[in-house]
Amino acid sequence: MSKYVYFFAEGKADGNKGLKNTLGGKGAGLAEMTNAGLPVPPGFTISTEVCRIYGENNNKIPEDIWKNIWESLERLEKVTGKRLGDRENPLLVSVRSGAAISMPGMMDTILNLGLNDKTVEGLAKASNNSRFAYDSYRRFIQMFSDVVLQIERKLFESELVKIREKEGVKTDPEISIHGLKELIDKYKKTVKKEWGEDFPQDTRMQLKMAVLAVFRSWNNKRAIEYRRIYNIPDSLGTAVNIQTMVFGNFGEDSGTGVGFTRNPATGEKEIFGEFLINAQGEDVVAGIRTPLHINELNNVLPKVYKQLIGIAKKLELNYRDMQDFEFTVEKGKLYMLQTRTGKRTGMAALKMAVDMVDEGLIKEEEAIMRVEPSALEQVLHPMFDPEKRAKHEPVAKGLNASPGAATGKAVFTPEEAVEWAKRGEKIILVRPETSPDDIAGMSVSQGILTSTGGMTSHAAVVGRQMGKPAVVGCGDIHADEEGKKFEVKGKIVKEGDWISIDGTTGEVYIAELPTVPSEIIQVVTGKMKKEGAKLYHYFERLLGWADKYRKLGVRANADTPKDAKIARTFGAEGIGLARTEHMFFAEERLPLMQKMILAEKEEERREALSKLLPMQREDFYGLLKEMRGYEVTIRLLDPPLHEFLPKREEVTQEISKKKRILESMEFEAEHSEEAEKVVQELEAEIEKLKKLLLRIEELHEFNPMLGHRGCRLGITYNEITEMQARAIFEAAGRLTKEGEKIFTEVMVPLVGHVKEIEDQKRIIDKAAKEVMKEYGVKIHYRVGTMIEVPRAALTADKIASVAEFFSFGTNDLTQMTFALSRDDAAKFLKIYLEKGIWPRDPFQSLDREGVGELMRIGVEKGRKARANLTIGICGEHGGDPDSIEFCHEVGLDYVSASPYRIPIARLAAARAALARK
Amino acid sequence: MSKYVYFFAEGKADGNKGLKNTLGGKGAGLAEMTNAGLPVPPGFTISTEVCRIYGENNNKIPEDIWKNIWESLERLEKVTGKRLGDRENPLLVSVRSGAAISMPGMMDTILNLGLNDKTVEGLAKASNNSRFAYDSYRRFIQMFSDVVLQIERKLFESELVKIREKEGVKTDPEISIHGLKELIDKYKKTVKKEWGEDFPQDTRMQLKMAVLAVFRSWNNKRAIEYRRIYNIPDSLGTAVNIQTMVFGNFGEDSGTGVGFTRNPATGEKEIFGEFLINAQGEDVVAGIRTPLHINELNNVLPKVYKQLIGIAKKLELNYRDMQDFEFTVEKGKLYMLQTRTGKRTGMAALKMAVDMVDEGLIKEEEAIMRVEPSALEQVLHPMFDPEKRAKHEPVAKGLNASPGAATGKAVFTPEEAVEWAKRGEKIILVRPETSPDDIAGMSVSQGILTSTGGMTSHAAVVGRQMGKPAVVGCGDIHADEEGKKFEVKGKIVKEGDWISIDGTTGEVYIAELPTVPSEIIQVVTGKMKKEGAKLYHYFERLLGWADKYRKLGVRANADTPKDAKIARTFGAEGIGLARTEHMFFAEERLPLMQKMILAEKEEERREALSKLLPMQREDFYGLLKEMRGYEVTIRLLDPPLHEFLPKREEVTQEISKKKRILESMEFEAEHSEEAEKVVQELEAEIEKLKKLLLRIEELHEFNPMLGHRGCRLGITYNEITEMQARAIFEAAGRLTKEGEKIFTEVMVPLVGHVKEIEDQKRIIDKAAKEVMKEYGVKIHYRVGTMIEVPRAALTADKIASVAEFFSFGTNDLTQMTFALSRDDAAKFLKIYLEKGIWPRDPFQSLDREGVGELMRIGVEKGRKARANLTIGICGEHGGDPDSIEFCHEVGLDYVSASPYRIPIARLAAARAALARK
Repeated sequence: MSKYVYFFAEGKADGNKGLKNTLGGKGAGLAEMTNAGLPVPPGFTISTEVCRIYGENNNKIPEDIWKNIWESLERLEKVTGKRLGDRENPLLVSVRSGAAISMPGMMDTILNLGLNDKTVEGLAKASNNSRFAYDSYRRFIQMFSDVVLQIERKLFESELVKIREKEGVKTDPEISIHGLKELIDKYKKTVKKEWGEDFPQDTRMQLKMAVLAVFRSWNNKRAIEYRRIYNIPDSLGTAVNIQTMVFGNFGEDSGTGVGFTRNPATGEKEIFGEFLINAQGEDVVAGIRTPLHINELNNVLPKVYKQLIGIAKKLELNYRDMQDFEFTVEKGKLYMLQTRTGKRTGMAALKMAVDMVDEGLIKEEEAIMRVEPSALEQVLHPMFDPEKRAKHEPVAKGLNASPGAATGKAVFTPEEAVEWAKRGEKIILVRPETSPDDIAGMSVSQGILTSTGGMTSHAAVVGRQMGKPAVVGCGDIHADEEGKKFEVKGKIVKEGDWISIDGTTGEVYIAELPTVPSEIIQVVTGKMKKEGAKLYHYFERLLGWADKYRKLGVRANADTPKDAKIARTFGAEGIGLARTEHMFFAEERLPLMQKMILAEKEEERREALSKLLPMQREDFYGLLKEMRGYEVTIRLLDPPLHEFLPKREEVTQEISKKKRILESMEFEAEHSEEAEKVVQELEAEIEKLKKLLLRIEELHEFNPMLGHRGCRLGITYNEITEMQARAIFEAAGRLTKEGEKIFTEVMVPLVGHVKEIEDQKRIIDKAAKEVMKEYGVKIHYRVGTMIEVPRAALTADKIASVAEFFSFGTNDLTQMTFALSRDDAAKFLKIYLEKGIWPRDPFQSLDREGVGELMRIGVEKGRKARANLTIGICGEHGGDPDSIEFCHEVGLDYVSASPYRIPIARLAAARAALARK
Repeated sequence: MSKYVYFFAEGKADGNKGLKNTLGGKGAGLAEMTNAGLPVPPGFTISTEVCRIYGENNNKIPEDIWKNIWESLERLEKVTGKRLGDRENPLLVSVRSGAAISMPGMMDTILNLGLNDKTVEGLAKASNNSRFAYDSYRRFIQMFSDVVLQIERKLFESELVKIREKEGVKTDPEISIHGLKELIDKYKKTVKKEWGEDFPQDTRMQLKMAVLAVFRSWNNKRAIEYRRIYNIPDSLGTAVNIQTMVFGNFGEDSGTGVGFTRNPATGEKEIFGEFLINAQGEDVVAGIRTPLHINELNNVLPKVYKQLIGIAKKLELNYRDMQDFEFTVEKGKLYMLQTRTGKRTGMAALKMAVDMVDEGLIKEEEAIMRVEPSALEQVLHPMFDPEKRAKHEPVAKGLNASPGAATGKAVFTPEEAVEWAKRGEKIILVRPETSPDDIAGMSVSQGILTSTGGMTSHAAVVGRQMGKPAVVGCGDIHADEEGKKFEVKGKIVKEGDWISIDGTTGEVYIAELPTVPSEIIQVVTGKMKKEGAKLYHYFERLLGWADKYRKLGVRANADTPKDAKIARTFGAEGIGLARTEHMFFAEERLPLMQKMILAEKEEERREALSKLLPMQREDFYGLLKEMRGYEVTIRLLDPPLHEFLPKREEVTQEISKKKRILESMEFEAEHSEEAEKVVQELEAEIEKLKKLLLRIEELHEFNPMLGHRGCRLGITYNEITEMQARAIFEAAGRLTKEGEKIFTEVMVPLVGHVKEIEDQKRIIDKAAKEVMKEYGVKIHYRVGTMIEVPRAALTADKIASVAEFFSFGTNDLTQMTFALSRDDAAKFLKIYLEKGIWPRDPFQSLDREGVGELMRIGVEKGRKARANLTIGICGEHGGDPDSIEFCHEVGLDYVSASPYRIPIARLAAARAALARK
């Protein structure tokens, strides 16, 4: 029989940190800490397996498991010497959720369970504190009613307000015992009215209901939403932890707090955290009261502080990673309630990983695995332009909870955040505090600003986790949710007003501050010196390690020498995709391109092309020179020709305009020679425009994506390929003559049949031969193709008999494989993702099952026909970590990504290689 | 060492009819006839292998093969007792091409080879006929110069004209010996001038040059064109036959002719053919002189006629098929020069195949293999509407060389035929006679009309082979190629005038005669009785046999009860594709459909749909009833919604129009209440139109083929699927209740991911359950999908875990696999086919390599997941014989074709099954 319940007490636990999947993060941490001899209140964990059984069993738990639970309860009663429901010495427990992957605040927790009309008196006696006992009972009823009985919270809050008003006090602690007892009566009446039955006095029934409620909360709306955002499988399930209560609200020698073994925002090696004296745990996390910095504990309870510092060190050594822990002090005695690997910002992840290698705590490979590609993305995020910023005065300063610069329009509710974001607005969510209900709104915001809450408040934790700038606990601002505005230093900021927040400094501006690239980007682009660029230093070291372990090459998608240079500085080893069509859109070239398109005869076309040739040659010269020593893959003209012509509407409007002028001049023209001449010119222009219109209509396509483009252009107009090939080889020839090592790859787009590349290769080879003869040098070049049409992958063996390299164009390959137009998908993509039909947007993250299958076929058949075939990817998936992992698995030679994603790709490639080990 | 040269003489040949690939058709026939003891002039055949060697060897023949050839020549000299170049008793030979697949007239032939200034005298002596000898020499120089030396033919013709004028005669036979000798001198001078050297007097050199010229002619332009039209591989090569000359132009007891063992136009069992007295072979085939019917031979040379009848019978028994033979009579002695299986019209193919089974000559399986699907297509071709035709008087009557009715505009050159056809015009090619150079023009014409030539002339043979109606030898018309007109009975028909020809009767009309369906179609559609419909009788018997041997089921693509009925009569076993969108375009339905599309809320959409439901139910009721007892696959709504809305331009025009009216009424409206009301109404209408315009723009897609259509509609608007499913099941339920056996298959279109069909199946199953409950009957139904997205084929195992059947939608699958829009392909398809990049239009004939590979993957994965998965095809390839063969190979259960292609599909399916045996 499986083990469903895991006990922990007195230095010995059934579980350990290795059983995270079974016990959840919290349960595994409690077991581990117990085994390590740390002061953990005893208790037991119901495994995640039971959550699955609960789900499959029509939301019930089988009797034999209940039997296990009651046995564990009895064992806990023995250990603590207290009994659940005992009116003299009652055992009180907390009931908490805890999944394998932390989902902070998403699921339910019940504290003080075990209190009823009888045991409350026992607690009063045992604690010698009646006020504490009745306050605990009233809190328990309130929490149980909310979480288990699902009665609206505000019904209890309004009673609380009434009692405060009746007693004429301002805060809850001032309420008298009499008042608390009256409140409990009121609460019980509310329960009877709303739930239909009396508040349960049977404490085992309380426990049973609480356990079921926690399991139920695995599937509440916000938990599901959270799992969707973070790609957490629904099948994981939560564990339930039942643990003896300890009380941080026993008076001034009690308290509760959370801490980190290092600074989760910056990565600094310093204990970090917050605590509240005389408070229960939820008070800290919820961010309702602004807590004190953990170092203050040294002043209030120095012995506890010292003990905590020791424990923190021990935890980090044990877990070999930064820990996020919870503790409670009850009457001067320290209890550890939780430890887990702490969430951190990208910057902190980078610094900690490198620091820990330097400290000998972890190995380079581990460091690589510790830094998620998304963390690296964060450190590449822009920051405010220092010059522009200097012209503005911050209106307020809060806690710098999650670094980065964010600018957006202020909105005041998560619902509005979603609405505004849908409209394409950049927004900043401003809240008094955030709660798990705000998740959706937070995820669409540029940044988060709260007026209360500390560095470990919900807004802070989630902000860091999402990599979104957050300023929290900014007491100067007074957010008015209903009025949709906030007031700060006499100024009113309304919904839709621009604000900017700096999560690195905590500053808030009433302005739309422009941003500049991050420190790393500035170093890379030569705008900042390497020396003193601390972040860059960490960045460089980690990526240096990544290069050691990765198997995949990393190239850049770059069309200009400037992009190529940036890519090189970011560590690109060549260019995987240089698009040549961009070069035709330049102002002085477009007319030539249009002339070429409008040509009726080959000679005319050739003439226009011959004028474009030297321009293209210069483009290629710059690009090849910048990437000398590395392979540069240049793709021949790809888009349909109509993209180079003006829109139909523009031309018809122009014609109408000219016609109107013409009409207005008719009379004049009859009487003036000059006017007559103008009229003639106009007529000629109209004629020309009409011809243009005709050609535009000729070139119109119903499905341009599946139309006359790619190599189909080069095959129907060989002269285009000739021109481009010549331009490439002339540039390469000149550079080779100048002594540079140049490697060019000519990529034929949209090939679906081997004869297509055969046709184009013949032209390209001929141009190469001619140019080599003219320049008297040998040019290193290869001819290959993009694999972007399903047929190309399916017949890769045939195509590889001609093509010397492949590059998967997964943007188009995804379009064809799904029959999905990228430009039109928006209409139903959202519904598809909501319904879970597609797990992710296939244009963002490679569809392994379908598109990936074609890639697998393509690689296998291609290599079969040509063993040394170079295979890469140049679709946007080449910069997506998950897709890069797949590229590694499927055996590609390299990925090609946009210049700014090169570091991500290097890291992801290393992680893919290490993950397989 | 391979054998390169095959000898035949005196009842014994190296080869036989089985060696067609090596000896070509002609060579194999000569060998076979020799072995059968028929009178064949002796000779030898150089194998097709040598043609390949010639091509690979830089257009040269290796010395060792020449050695073989000379050895055979010497052997021939021994057998005949004559010697090549001997001035006393010279051997003369013909040198002819002959490929494995007959390409009539496409390649070159040289007759009378061996004549020179010396041997001509020997021939004069031996034949005792100087005029004959010099005429033969002059013909030989002319032919050799044309074919071997490639000197323009007209240079010789103009000399011929001059001599005739000089001698004051009208025809060539009237030219005196003196004149012939003078002509020979002139010819030799022309050769010297054009070729640069003297006409070769060395007879072995003549032979050598002639052999090389025949091999060269394999790659002349018209031969390549012909091979492209008939899909003959370029690698086949031609053989060269060198055969002792016999002369049909020795006088009135000589002659030459061609014959068929049965009538190739109608299939009647009667000897059929033509001959010319005192003529050489080419005169008959070229159609220059109108020959006599073969039965006339009985009057002229009764002994020869009798012998020929005997030989024809023998040939047919030997070959077990209708033979097309050539013969020459030299001074009363019959020689057989060729036999081959004769080309025939579709009607003849059908009749002969059935007749030969009845005669016990062949088996049913052979009969099936004898009738090409294209032959069957011919007998389904339309004929002229008898009533309409009765109102017109034929202007002329020629030979009914190839049956069928054709109407088109008259054109007079093959070049113009191609031009006009390109513009989409229907044309009839009118020529004095046709020649191999006319092939391209003939292939684009509706029919062919010639003024000279007989039933075995070029126009007749090619017309029958192409299945195009042809009227030949129509002496009443006088075609004027240069004047682009013809004159008939005083009427002038100019280029572009409508004419109609009936290849079944030989009649010509100056009119655009409307056509009516063929006899078979009339029987099938109930417009003619079966009894007395002879053709239908043959048709039914052959297809009956086909049904016995085929493995593939044959269903129809049919949307209406009418189509379903025709399909049934044609033998369809169910419906493979009923498109439901056509039903929404009906006049009374479109407004409801538009209302549904314009609805802003689900309820509005549901309301419109609820009105469409009973209409759809009636559609399905009719369809299912007609196909009762068989599976009917109904596809849910597929096209993008914008297809149901008016075009953007229409709406903007309508708005402008209404606005103009509005403006014109403004003054009036201020003074009249009635006008005021009209204005208000107009304003409301404009508002409505603007809303419509907005929705049209919202629905606009860049690539509708890859957009919001197929199951994506049903997934985003579940209510559409609900309505359609209900309509299907209510119809099925009612019929089931009425006691009919109904089998419905609900097909979900454009599925690419298993979760899509999961989503739709849930809705369909729910509707089925509800309707079954309401109607109290069990409805037999299955839910499946079209496989038309590459991803569906690639993940067929996953999809088959939900789908109960697959149907390959190869139209779209081809579009996606090639990244090729059907609507846009025209721009480059032609160039692709011309360049041979695609062997065939992939929308006409299934691309086995790419699309076929996806089908193979889909079938394999699908059956792996669900062993009893029914798999069909419903793309237009389902009616294409070559594609049907592939469907058989890949193991599909059925093909679905348009109703009129059902017979083709049945036959093709049987042929595929038999071909594999």
